[in-house]
Amino acid sequence: MVYVYTTKIKWRGGRKGEIKFGYGYSSDFSSPPEFGGEAGHLTPEEAFVASVNMNFMETFLSLAEKRGVRVVEYSSDANGILGQKGGKEAIVRVVVHPDITVESEEDLSQLREVVDAARKQSLVMASINSTIVVEFRASIRKQ
Amino acid sequence: MVYVYTTKIKWRGGRKGEIKFGYGYSSDFSSPPEFGGEAGHLTPEEAFVASVNMNFMETFLSLAEKRGVRVVEYSSDANGILGQKGGKEAIVRVVVHPDITVESEEDLSQLREVVDAARKQSLVMASINSTIVVEFRASIRKQ
Repeated sequence: MVYVYTTKIKWRGGRKGEIKFGYGYSSDFSSPPEFGGEAGHLTPEEAFVASVNMNFMETFLSLAEKRGVRVVEYSSDANGILGQKGGKEAIVRVVVHPDITVESEEDLSQLREVVDAARKQSLVMASINSTIVVEFRASIRKQ
Repeated sequence: MVYVYTTKIKWRGGRKGEIKFGYGYSSDFSSPPEFGGEAGHLTPEEAFVASVNMNFMETFLSLAEKRGVRVVEYSSDANGILGQKGGKEAIVRVVVHPDITVESEEDLSQLREVVDAARKQSLVMASINSTIVVEFRASIRKQ
């Protein structure tokens, strides 16, 4: 099966536009302030980092489920750092910080393996050439 | 100046979550239906393609402005194709189809050069390892 992910955008003047996603979500967007846009809108640069952060979570949850690791809570910050690569501006580094709460000691003992597998299998991470760092923090649900 | 693009996510059960962007935008999100989510939400895979599509537009508009090319309308479809790369699932190809209307023949004559420069300077395009194809259509504003 081949999946195609589609987006349609339309410029609305200045550094703003509208976007529609193939699965129905829609939003306005803008350049970030440092590139002439205004805050509060979806930005291309943040969407890039968001896709990494969200896809890693989804991949992790799917693998945890398959392996019977009981995840209670999951949150994650991800930061993308703009820098120079080969004379071009690029997001040179993405750092993902998942904060994961599991049910028991047994779940905790399997967590590193699931995180490592998700790092390898995340399809968005496989699609970028930024340096990727995943540093997770784990805890067990308080009884 | 170093810019850092930040996103924070929180899992909300199933394949859904909430995301907050550093510049203030927020949204719920979900895996796409083929990965256990439901349609209508922001998805990681579409966000990836969106970041390419939006960043190309912003880069193009910025360069057009600098070179005095008068852009009247801009819309663009972008598609990301999920496939296999080195034994991993990845967005192997992103095709961007800008549809650009300019003011005059003179603007039109410079358009290819601006599109090519935007292709080279788009910081999101420089951050991905998918094959990228940009095929634009151009027209002059009807008098």
